[in-house]
Amino acid sequence: MDALKQLILRDGKYLGNGILKVDGFINHQVDPAMMDACGMEFARLFANVGATRILTAEISGIAPALMTARHMGLPVVYARKSKPVTMPDTVYLTVAPSHTKGRMVELIVSPEYLARGEKVLIIDDFLASGATILGLIRLAQAAGSEVVGVGTLIEKSFEGGREALEALNLTVHSLAIINRMDETGIHFAD
Amino acid sequence: MDALKQLILRDGKYLGNGILKVDGFINHQVDPAMMDACGMEFARLFANVGATRILTAEISGIAPALMTARHMGLPVVYARKSKPVTMPDTVYLTVAPSHTKGRMVELIVSPEYLARGEKVLIIDDFLASGATILGLIRLAQAAGSEVVGVGTLIEKSFEGGREALEALNLTVHSLAIINRMDETGIHFAD
Repeated sequence: MDALKQLILRDGKYLGNGILKVDGFINHQVDPAMMDACGMEFARLFANVGATRILTAEISGIAPALMTARHMGLPVVYARKSKPVTMPDTVYLTVAPSHTKGRMVELIVSPEYLARGEKVLIIDDFLASGATILGLIRLAQAAGSEVVGVGTLIEKSFEGGREALEALNLTVHSLAIINRMDETGIHFAD
Repeated sequence: MDALKQLILRDGKYLGNGILKVDGFINHQVDPAMMDACGMEFARLFANVGATRILTAEISGIAPALMTARHMGLPVVYARKSKPVTMPDTVYLTVAPSHTKGRMVELIVSPEYLARGEKVLIIDDFLASGATILGLIRLAQAAGSEVVGVGTLIEKSFEGGREALEALNLTVHSLAIINRMDETGIHFAD
């Protein structure tokens, strides 16, 4: 998506070690019009997958998932990273390594909001190694629901996430695919 | 706001100890159409305060703040509860007690996205004791910006938050004000 790529080139910052800073419009400050346009684009890309629910992970997945949910008219569930007192005693829980936190994090979904037979579209901010998204897929599978697609705002194609997901026969769409980041800048695929 | 009150009566659950469970449409699963309507209502209520930026706290504040930002055409900043590697070394940080977590949590904003002279509208999911919102106000003040209003989806009027905010001469709007929760149910003001 061209508008997102332009924003990445203008406001994104490569910090080294494979880390792209997009705090100005995704991870700390959010540009609502851009995020809404991304949601509309995901709704178009996944119009025909038969999704009944959108699943994401707190924190930075919430904005793109919510805007996609708005355009598709579907409920959105965000996996929690700690179990709040309002959740039932028995939940779906998996652990996944967090690249940015440098440790394992928990991903927790209540059985109240993810049921057998649901068709789940996963939306998140980044596709890097795919570890978080593979965790969300395990939660969906634990609930007996089917993942019908994966959409991310920004993919770092050199970290292997797409290969991990396509090995599961999943349709993956990323709105901006970065092939290379180095001292010469941020370079997109195509 | 009547639609929100109806949803609270239908899907909300009083768990005792002052805890209202609204995981089905705010804190875990989100109803995007309802959240969008709440954002539109906040935009109407705060149309004339001259806000230049919306501030909230991760996690559950993101959805209502983002939808409000969309309707007002403003950027939204969500205070982080841990400092990501992408943030600069020097940040605005305050601590606030979390009722649902039973401990102090940090609220962190980067100086990059909150500047002197900004007019800040604070949007959050709950107004209870006001501790989180008072923390956001301290962050805004540390940045030299001015808080021009506070909007929350659900207020528990018996926990003192409104009094704490009005003592600061702030305009406060809540879309559903709960006066009492007990074995007889959830009771709204007016």
